[in-house]
Amino acid sequence: MNKLLQKLTYGHYILTALKEGEDLKTRDNDYIAAGTVNWASQVSFEPEMLAVAVGQMSDLNETIDYSGHFTLHILGKDHKEMVEKFGSKSKVEANTINGVPFTKEKGEVVLENTLGYVTCKVTETVNVGDHTVHFGEVVRQNLQRDSEPICTMELTSQYKKEDLETA
Amino acid sequence: MNKLLQKLTYGHYILTALKEGEDLKTRDNDYIAAGTVNWASQVSFEPEMLAVAVGQMSDLNETIDYSGHFTLHILGKDHKEMVEKFGSKSKVEANTINGVPFTKEKGEVVLENTLGYVTCKVTETVNVGDHTVHFGEVVRQNLQRDSEPICTMELTSQYKKEDLETA
Repeated sequence: MNKLLQKLTYGHYILTALKEGEDLKTRDNDYIAAGTVNWASQVSFEPEMLAVAVGQMSDLNETIDYSGHFTLHILGKDHKEMVEKFGSKSKVEANTINGVPFTKEKGEVVLENTLGYVTCKVTETVNVGDHTVHFGEVVRQNLQRDSEPICTMELTSQYKKEDLETA
Repeated sequence: MNKLLQKLTYGHYILTALKEGEDLKTRDNDYIAAGTVNWASQVSFEPEMLAVAVGQMSDLNETIDYSGHFTLHILGKDHKEMVEKFGSKSKVEANTINGVPFTKEKGEVVLENTLGYVTCKVTETVNVGDHTVHFGEVVRQNLQRDSEPICTMELTSQYKKEDLETA
């Protein structure tokens, strides 16, 4: 455990990515991936751009690569349970991921009942250490509830190396 | 103002960079830059790496380019005043920056009285929109006080496009 690096503060987000089956020649099913991430940041005002870091071997990374898009959902103080639910391998069913209803909209997977979400088109991808950082330009955003977001200091468990193996 | 992107949560940090005058052929004085940043994140566990986004036209960006290193200072809940002090162009004097004492250590500028700092060696630099993202591998870190860090939601003013012009 590195006490100093754990003083860096983040939000808790759920990141989703979708590659629809109809776009694929070898497969009918959609590729859908979802997971809790902390390492996300805006990186430009004009154009509006975000960066997210995901485990290099994760389903999320693979699906973002396929799709060229990612959707970052913002969580509020009452979403602690959701942070945990999406902390390990996701269970995707017809209309739910880990029990949370979602809709497919314009190539995005949108989870119900978050504070809002922002979808980015990937413009550049950089491998750094054991993660991949995807830079993306904001193409769509939707604020659904204007309440205060949750921050990493409000949960006792932080993102750690062991989590990489379950992503 | 973009209400949705302002729901992304960050810490408040002071970023410094130093290029010592003795390394330069055309100049005796050190290049020293310092400023408040929010857009910083760990991006790898192994090796430990950080990414920071700084305004492309800022003194900080230029000095990190010269130096190949940056030092991120972590601020606590009692550092609100320091966040403001380092929010616009820095005033560097013999032993202080914006009135805060600093020491030069092994090519780093270390500010006194923060929670701690981490110095990174830049491994890759990417221009994205109006910012530059520097990726760096952690080479030195020092936790000086183990108290809770300050997060963006605790201050009313957030990093905004107009701040780019004063950096």
